[in-house]
Amino acid sequence: MKIITSIDELKTIIRKEKQNGKQIGFVPTMGYLHDGHLSLIEKASIENHFVVVSIFVNPTQFGINEDFDVYPRDLERDQKIAEIGGANIIFHPTIKEMYPNGYRTYVEVEEITEKLCGASRPGHFRGVTTVVAKLFHIVTPHRAYFGLKDAQQVAVLQKMVKDLNMDVQVIPCPIVREADGLAMSSRNVNLSPQDRKTALILSKSLAKAKEIVAAGERNAEMILIQVKKTLATEPTVIIDYIEIVDFETFERIDILKGRVLIAIAAKIGKVRLIDNIILEDLPSCI
Amino acid sequence: MKIITSIDELKTIIRKEKQNGKQIGFVPTMGYLHDGHLSLIEKASIENHFVVVSIFVNPTQFGINEDFDVYPRDLERDQKIAEIGGANIIFHPTIKEMYPNGYRTYVEVEEITEKLCGASRPGHFRGVTTVVAKLFHIVTPHRAYFGLKDAQQVAVLQKMVKDLNMDVQVIPCPIVREADGLAMSSRNVNLSPQDRKTALILSKSLAKAKEIVAAGERNAEMILIQVKKTLATEPTVIIDYIEIVDFETFERIDILKGRVLIAIAAKIGKVRLIDNIILEDLPSCI
Repeated sequence: MKIITSIDELKTIIRKEKQNGKQIGFVPTMGYLHDGHLSLIEKASIENHFVVVSIFVNPTQFGINEDFDVYPRDLERDQKIAEIGGANIIFHPTIKEMYPNGYRTYVEVEEITEKLCGASRPGHFRGVTTVVAKLFHIVTPHRAYFGLKDAQQVAVLQKMVKDLNMDVQVIPCPIVREADGLAMSSRNVNLSPQDRKTALILSKSLAKAKEIVAAGERNAEMILIQVKKTLATEPTVIIDYIEIVDFETFERIDILKGRVLIAIAAKIGKVRLIDNIILEDLPSCI
Repeated sequence: MKIITSIDELKTIIRKEKQNGKQIGFVPTMGYLHDGHLSLIEKASIENHFVVVSIFVNPTQFGINEDFDVYPRDLERDQKIAEIGGANIIFHPTIKEMYPNGYRTYVEVEEITEKLCGASRPGHFRGVTTVVAKLFHIVTPHRAYFGLKDAQQVAVLQKMVKDLNMDVQVIPCPIVREADGLAMSSRNVNLSPQDRKTALILSKSLAKAKEIVAAGERNAEMILIQVKKTLATEPTVIIDYIEIVDFETFERIDILKGRVLIAIAAKIGKVRLIDNIILEDLPSCI
């Protein structure tokens, strides 16, 4: 496995692999890899001949008061995990390589980026779509793998790819959780031991929602009341949003039907975490 | 030569050509082809194995009070010209094929798009970069050819390609003029016979500027005074802008040096025309 920092060098390698008929799999990450990332890399390795993992803490997707500076970084550890997953290349560019002086171009998806995380993090998705468009042009992958913990991100990127006629398949992959249910996230390492325990309330409250829906509840308001009640058992949690939306449009729904996303964002200590569940093929009543 | 209206069909054709090692040349146009376009198609045919000409009057680059509805269209005539130039494919999608219901993604280059035509046509370049990004993803050309009559457009697209790491060479081509000096434009057909004569003042005033610079003048203000004086000899011309800018940054300059663009936009009757000259390698004095 090679670590490449230069865009041109990576492009040359990819061009050669493609000339040899190789299919390229791509896992874009901000590093500090965990088992969630590992599952993406493994899937990419199974489905493609050649796998690129990018590790780039992308400044344009962080707001000015967000955690860019304290976002965890550990390239050496990442190397080992990427290698175990079967990656062929780690692409680890500098900020200057990605955004040289005078950089001025942005890709923006409207509407679904204005909801959920887009509403609480203005400009966040513009940073995401811009860097991913760049990475797609650099890596030119056949398939790109994204975790569904960032469900809205997946939907935004699928929209970008479709609207801009990009030739890449965006492949959403299930959330990987710790044994106790906490959704894996690079940010978890910044939780204090106490906050780490508190954070469990996110997955617990989503499990509660799932349970209520399984029992037949379809009224979003009723479900939200129960979720909020569960979250309230941890009074130090500062809720950013709890939303029940259609997974296609990200519009709030009153009655659950079809493919539904229940998503939570909350601050626990200094760390903002997100979690969600996707409920598929919901009949309007059971 | 084939006319293709479906994005998927074109992608399939291009994929096959590329698998056979063919280099793809691309000439994006809004149709109503003239000798300027022909020169681009001919150059593309010389430099590539396979040439795609797109004909698409792109609604997103027209403002609400602009001439989208009266922009001239004549596919039959365009076919003949493209064929003479050596094109292999005309790509002629519908608006719905390019912007299906729910379309929401835009590519935007900041800063240089806020000047000249960007200042007088808000949103224009956002429409241009968006449609060209889409077309580049659909056609995946090795080389794309653009006329320098739209000098700012060329600069904006070069910036987009560089910033987004796109793998295409944007090739600027010289303005083609009528025998009397009028820069070729599809919009010229909308000029009345009287306005057609009046329109000559644009190229004449630029020729005047060139003459003054050749005589040693380097002060932008002095040159602008002379250009305006020449333009004023046709009092029906409504000037949108006359600018002397650095060709790299599109910033106004006081003293001409290096690579300089002198650009004019003006309304003649109901038709907005643009013209420019690029002065290369100007020493600061002669």
